[in-house]
Amino acid sequence: MSKTIITIGRQFGAGGRELGKKLANKLNITYYDKEVIDSVAVLSGLSKEYIAENDEVVTNSFLYSIVMGTRTLTGQKTVEEIKMDAQREAILEIAEKGSCVIIGRAADYILKEEKPLRIFISSDEATRIERVCKRDGLSREEAEKKIRKMDKLRAAYYNEYADAAWGRADNYDLCINLSRFSIDQAIEMITMNCK
Amino acid sequence: MSKTIITIGRQFGAGGRELGKKLANKLNITYYDKEVIDSVAVLSGLSKEYIAENDEVVTNSFLYSIVMGTRTLTGQKTVEEIKMDAQREAILEIAEKGSCVIIGRAADYILKEEKPLRIFISSDEATRIERVCKRDGLSREEAEKKIRKMDKLRAAYYNEYADAAWGRADNYDLCINLSRFSIDQAIEMITMNCK
Repeated sequence: MSKTIITIGRQFGAGGRELGKKLANKLNITYYDKEVIDSVAVLSGLSKEYIAENDEVVTNSFLYSIVMGTRTLTGQKTVEEIKMDAQREAILEIAEKGSCVIIGRAADYILKEEKPLRIFISSDEATRIERVCKRDGLSREEAEKKIRKMDKLRAAYYNEYADAAWGRADNYDLCINLSRFSIDQAIEMITMNCK
Repeated sequence: MSKTIITIGRQFGAGGRELGKKLANKLNITYYDKEVIDSVAVLSGLSKEYIAENDEVVTNSFLYSIVMGTRTLTGQKTVEEIKMDAQREAILEIAEKGSCVIIGRAADYILKEEKPLRIFISSDEATRIERVCKRDGLSREEAEKKIRKMDKLRAAYYNEYADAAWGRADNYDLCINLSRFSIDQAIEMITMNCK
């Protein structure tokens, strides 16, 4: 079998991570989610804590620097740019190493030359709220707020980084609603392309 | 087996119709695409020709009447509204009759109370261009132009009618890129939910 690279974009609380882990396990290939952070820290020289805190986030100061055009004026990279460049490099290195599942981080876009299998995972709002309440120990209202905020951050990050629209069906090869299909069914679908 | 209603949204030239026909055949249920037009004509009292010509299209005059608020001023329905109301009614009647596959026409939204299985079909641009060239006997440039125009019309129609975003993954239960998966694989995926 040739190299299999699967990227998984996902709504917050939809179950993308759980699916990704099971999928990597089933295919016996490496799983990357938070694991990317270590490589980004090494490659950027920035602290793991900073990378973790700003994982999949575009800071306002970065967006400001784009709008104001100050990025090109100083000729120096901002911390945000150093982080983003290191993340890009880390993801390219990961894909170089061998077959893998990578969660989020615009990996589908960064690796487009490799033609990864691009998955997007969604779920109905009620299911997501229930999952986030249970997982993060939040009230219903807090979970709703967190879901809205995290999806907004992920979309902003992706749209900025990838110059494409997060969650739009035609950016992906397969988008699965995990309220309608089970994780095992989703894995069966995805692996149709890995035979 | 309880009633199975499957709606298929699709990019122009992506192969949604071919998939829909094969799927309906496999499940031995009724297929509706252009077939909806006859019912709309009967229900609206408008000619079949008019309905066919304005199928899945929101006319500029209708959008204008919304912007200007003239719809409510006259208290009378525009031809566009008569058509859209009849289409809604036709689709509700179709779903009432029994299991079916319905192509486009915001059927996923119209039937949301029935919780249809909502599919969206996309395909890479190169594949779509090739298909449209062959099917409609067009040059490459003409096919590209037609694809852009038709997708724009479908999106405008859906977004106006359904008050939701056409082609956004979280509006559907399963979005499949037919450049990456075969029609038979897509049918296998979809029917996982029909057992």
